[in-house]
Amino acid sequence: MPQDDHHHAHGEVGTQRIEAFSDGVFAIAITLLIIEIAVPHVEGDQSLGEALKNLWPSYFAYVLSFISIGIYWANHHTFFKFFHATDHGFLMLNVLFLMCVAFLPFPTAVLGDYLDNDNQRDAAVTLYCAGLLAPAFTWALLWWWGNLRDLIDERLAPDFKRYMSRQYLLSNAAFFTALVLSLINPWVALTIAVGTTALYLLPPRRPRYID
Amino acid sequence: MPQDDHHHAHGEVGTQRIEAFSDGVFAIAITLLIIEIAVPHVEGDQSLGEALKNLWPSYFAYVLSFISIGIYWANHHTFFKFFHATDHGFLMLNVLFLMCVAFLPFPTAVLGDYLDNDNQRDAAVTLYCAGLLAPAFTWALLWWWGNLRDLIDERLAPDFKRYMSRQYLLSNAAFFTALVLSLINPWVALTIAVGTTALYLLPPRRPRYID
Amino acid sequence: MPQDDHHHAHGEVGTQRIEAFSDGVFAIAITLLIIEIAVPHVEGDQSLGEALKNLWPSYFAYVLSFISIGIYWANHHTFFKFFHATDHGFLMLNVLFLMCVAFLPFPTAVLGDYLDNDNQRDAAVTLYCAGLLAPAFTWALLWWWGNLRDLIDERLAPDFKRYMSRQYLLSNAAFFTALVLSLINPWVALTIAVGTTALYLLPPRRPRYID
Amino acid sequence: MPQDDHHHAHGEVGTQRIEAFSDGVFAIAITLLIIEIAVPHVEGDQSLGEALKNLWPSYFAYVLSFISIGIYWANHHTFFKFFHATDHGFLMLNVLFLMCVAFLPFPTAVLGDYLDNDNQRDAAVTLYCAGLLAPAFTWALLWWWGNLRDLIDERLAPDFKRYMSRQYLLSNAAFFTALVLSLINPWVALTIAVGTTALYLLPPRRPRYID
Repeated sequence: MPQDDHHHAHGEVGTQRIEAFSDGVFAIAITLLIIEIAVPHVEGDQSLGEALKNLWPSYFAYVLSFISIGIYWANHHTFFKFFHATDHGFLMLNVLFLMCVAFLPFPTAVLGDYLDNDNQRDAAVTLYCAGLLAPAFTWALLWWWGNLRDLIDERLAPDFKRYMSRQYLLSNAAFFTALVLSLINPWVALTIAVGTTALYLLPPRRPRYID
Repeated sequence: MPQDDHHHAHGEVGTQRIEAFSDGVFAIAITLLIIEIAVPHVEGDQSLGEALKNLWPSYFAYVLSFISIGIYWANHHTFFKFFHATDHGFLMLNVLFLMCVAFLPFPTAVLGDYLDNDNQRDAAVTLYCAGLLAPAFTWALLWWWGNLRDLIDERLAPDFKRYMSRQYLLSNAAFFTALVLSLINPWVALTIAVGTTALYLLPPRRPRYID
Repeated sequence: MPQDDHHHAHGEVGTQRIEAFSDGVFAIAITLLIIEIAVPHVEGDQSLGEALKNLWPSYFAYVLSFISIGIYWANHHTFFKFFHATDHGFLMLNVLFLMCVAFLPFPTAVLGDYLDNDNQRDAAVTLYCAGLLAPAFTWALLWWWGNLRDLIDERLAPDFKRYMSRQYLLSNAAFFTALVLSLINPWVALTIAVGTTALYLLPPRRPRYID
Repeated sequence: MPQDDHHHAHGEVGTQRIEAFSDGVFAIAITLLIIEIAVPHVEGDQSLGEALKNLWPSYFAYVLSFISIGIYWANHHTFFKFFHATDHGFLMLNVLFLMCVAFLPFPTAVLGDYLDNDNQRDAAVTLYCAGLLAPAFTWALLWWWGNLRDLIDERLAPDFKRYMSRQYLLSNAAFFTALVLSLINPWVALTIAVGTTALYLLPPRRPRYID
């Protein structure tokens, strides 16, 4: 890990340690999601079985957020391999990105509590779409910063770099569209959010390098 | 770790990093279990000692779930050694498996709250048995996927592979039986769940390799 | 790490991985302690400043438990160096030990809520002393198991081994005394618990090896 | 890692393991912050959107504490590089420092709940400023201890050491000023706290070594 040591020597945090910290935040945020589902209180004649079934929006939100964070975790390491160096701004943007990932349990809990509430569904879905857009946007900022500051590995093929730029733009556009549409029709917004997330379950394109 | 690097080079997540992430989720899920036990509220003449004793279902559920996740942790590393390679489907199935492990604190909390409630015990035990079946099932899916896609280390002895297949089938059958029986008699269901988990406390059979 | 690999080859978990998992549980349990302190609800004329001061038992319990887990963390690594090998029983006993460490946030929360309640103090202190005894006891079990099964590094000087045995016996005796006394006088019990913990803040004796 | 092994041989915890544990506590504390924001309960005519907007003090406290812990994480590794050795007191002071970092989610939650409450704002801001001062103070204690016990790398340039001493003194003075001013004007206190934290977002000065 010569790159790592090089950065330490200059008082900057090495990529290995950034990745380990990011992995820690991913693992904790993903495992905390379940804490937000409260045990239902039933009394007397009420049925616990019924109450557990009525928590379906919470289970749905749990699965969707778990997969979203899982995808970020799976891609974060590959993503970091695209950069041959880091700088202070990159480090700070990564903290900003992690702040958005670590925030996701809150919109998830709100969505779980209010998705089946006809009066409040819109606000819950809007918050959730914003919660999905935020990490996608800061991830794109990292990529954009890396390009701007020449931190990207120069051996990465130009067409692969264009492909990544396009992909990040498209997912941001999709989550932004979902956010805007949530003000009109929350179900359509949620469908777009689920669909965009589902696309990321497909195998990622392998990075291409200049020979 | 040539295997690891090989995968990185192709944009796939290396087994080392999958294991580190899985270990993180195990450690967090196992430690979060205690958070689900709420401090009892007692006032005036009520006795805190009595209230703490009445939490026995929560202590029982804590111990059972802690041991269950602990066993998954202990076996996950050995399990991963059986695979000579990973692919995208394997990675996604492992995320699915972790989603089931990370879900366990919720059924644990429900069981702790309702096990001594005659009206609601059935539903709580059914959810808990489902909570135990889910990781056992997705674990078996990982094994099945590995066999299907030729990811299993070919040096593993065929009879050892058959032994593992049989073991995974049997524990799934046991937890499924517990799930079904919970609809009739929750105590019998719980006994099967405890017994199956206890069997996993025995030393695992050592992997046999072809010479 | 030849020892590690040796164990992997036999399907047993390596010490490095046990330590990493244990460190994870220590770090999570220690950081979860703060979650158990609930934000006080004050309304109208009530003073938040007053309410925050009235939480002193929670701060006290937080500090005491943080230090206790911190000491276990600091000693766990040195402790593991005393063993030249592990077996399945050792692994299971370590899971049992971690179960006791991970349980500590609950007695901590109970102590914080009821230490200044004259009617319920006894039960809260009894639970807390039991919460401190449990990890001390299972730690001693690990040591005893290691001696019984010849897992202890034979180069460790016999008088150092006797010193460790004596120390583990004494701290168990101290926490057990605190537990029993808590039924009579909780303040005396708590003083013994604090004193015993404070002794562990002193620099540990350096291990002595046979030349 | 010869330094690490040297310390292990003497029964002391190696710096690598201290850093890994500290990183774990940072990652967990930073990710737990979101748990303290409770999902608002709205009923009937009330608006969830409105309720979510009214949580702005919680979002503000979340961002400020996330950045604070993130900065400690980013600097901790570089900081540890300044020490060529550790001793028992250093280890204990680091546990004390982590205790202060892990405490931060509580003042954060209190600030989030009471910042827009005219009657209780003062106490909430005072607690929060104390919550920011505590880790800054124990961090300075680590530095002071290292100087006192000759643990600082002697190749570090004297003027760089003076620069660090000055910086730690200034941030402690700033947070202490904020703490005192919070008793008079909480908004001014908070502005100082935010400003001091923001200064740490600037790239840190690179360590200078004697040639």
